[in-house]
Amino acid sequence: MKSYRREIFVNVPSRRGFINLTHQVEECLRESGIKEGLCLVNPMHITASVFINDNESGLHHDYEVFLEKLAPNEPTSQYWHNNTGEDNADAHIKRQLMGREAIVAITKGALDFGTWEQIFYAEFDGRRRKRVLVKIIGE
Amino acid sequence: MKSYRREIFVNVPSRRGFINLTHQVEECLRESGIKEGLCLVNPMHITASVFINDNESGLHHDYEVFLEKLAPNEPTSQYWHNNTGEDNADAHIKRQLMGREAIVAITKGALDFGTWEQIFYAEFDGRRRKRVLVKIIGE
Amino acid sequence: MKSYRREIFVNVPSRRGFINLTHQVEECLRESGIKEGLCLVNPMHITASVFINDNESGLHHDYEVFLEKLAPNEPTSQYWHNNTGEDNADAHIKRQLMGREAIVAITKGALDFGTWEQIFYAEFDGRRRKRVLVKIIGE
Repeated sequence: MKSYRREIFVNVPSRRGFINLTHQVEECLRESGIKEGLCLVNPMHITASVFINDNESGLHHDYEVFLEKLAPNEPTSQYWHNNTGEDNADAHIKRQLMGREAIVAITKGALDFGTWEQIFYAEFDGRRRKRVLVKIIGE
Repeated sequence: MKSYRREIFVNVPSRRGFINLTHQVEECLRESGIKEGLCLVNPMHITASVFINDNESGLHHDYEVFLEKLAPNEPTSQYWHNNTGEDNADAHIKRQLMGREAIVAITKGALDFGTWEQIFYAEFDGRRRKRVLVKIIGE
Repeated sequence: MKSYRREIFVNVPSRRGFINLTHQVEECLRESGIKEGLCLVNPMHITASVFINDNESGLHHDYEVFLEKLAPNEPTSQYWHNNTGEDNADAHIKRQLMGREAIVAITKGALDFGTWEQIFYAEFDGRRRKRVLVKIIGE
């Protein structure tokens, strides 16, 4: 069994935003030399998500509107977590709704994806550098 | 390390619906000959979910009502994604709430499940054939 | 390839609550002797979640409030699932929103976590003993 690990760095200049990670994960996969296995991609932070969906900016806007309506950032005083001096309780909730990690099958040296599947990083508390872990195991 | 891959085909005749995949995944597992490992099951589409929960039709009705209330299909014009000519933005949101994939431990050649765990496909934009990927790695 | 399996027992005395599983999963990892691989942690029940987020009680309170607002336990008659004699349909919904399982990369014999990542069990239908599965594969 082979294993591979790399950190990808991201930096969303606003509080919230989406970054397409697909090409960088494919680059990791090539570098790993693994042909058959599983690939885990997860933020190393707890106010961000890695998820698989469409590369369509209108949809990302819809996600943003949906999540902000369900778990609005303001008023920040509505959340007990923010009594710790944070203002990001909403980001911890949004991250749970969108999920933490993506697991992708590796087949014949490629991400085993349907036509429209792409990997995204969703930032809910940005304006600083964050890390995304790519771990691949297989042969 | 051994690896196994198969696609399961599903076709939900209505826009939304649930399909129990448990037996088909068990069949994949037998075919793979893998005794210890991990099994990934995911739709190869971005308006559907694979999830693990109860085989109880009343609960599936409750999920349907809950999801349609949170992210209603209509009016379709409320979503930017639908400006692309689609009418399925709600399906992309519902899929995020229910999750994309299930990961199941394989132990002694069986799905390592609690008493009530079963694997379901949730369709949010059906009326056409779709594919579910089963990837198993282990020994 | 090595594989390891253990069940962790939990018992939340109230209907809902959170338990930090991080140390117990680390103990499993040491016991497994696995240095590189993937670790799956999932409840063997369908009204509970395993998730990765912050070890901060205010945040856990916020999750509780958020989930109970979205999918309230009462009136129990609002859910078809409860016609089976259960009163826990809300718990099945909450579990879907928080997710079923966590997958953690194993690197150099440790959980490959960012600074604040910890593993929690979220109970939505407690007052009885439940099982959490830890499955680790790797080398």
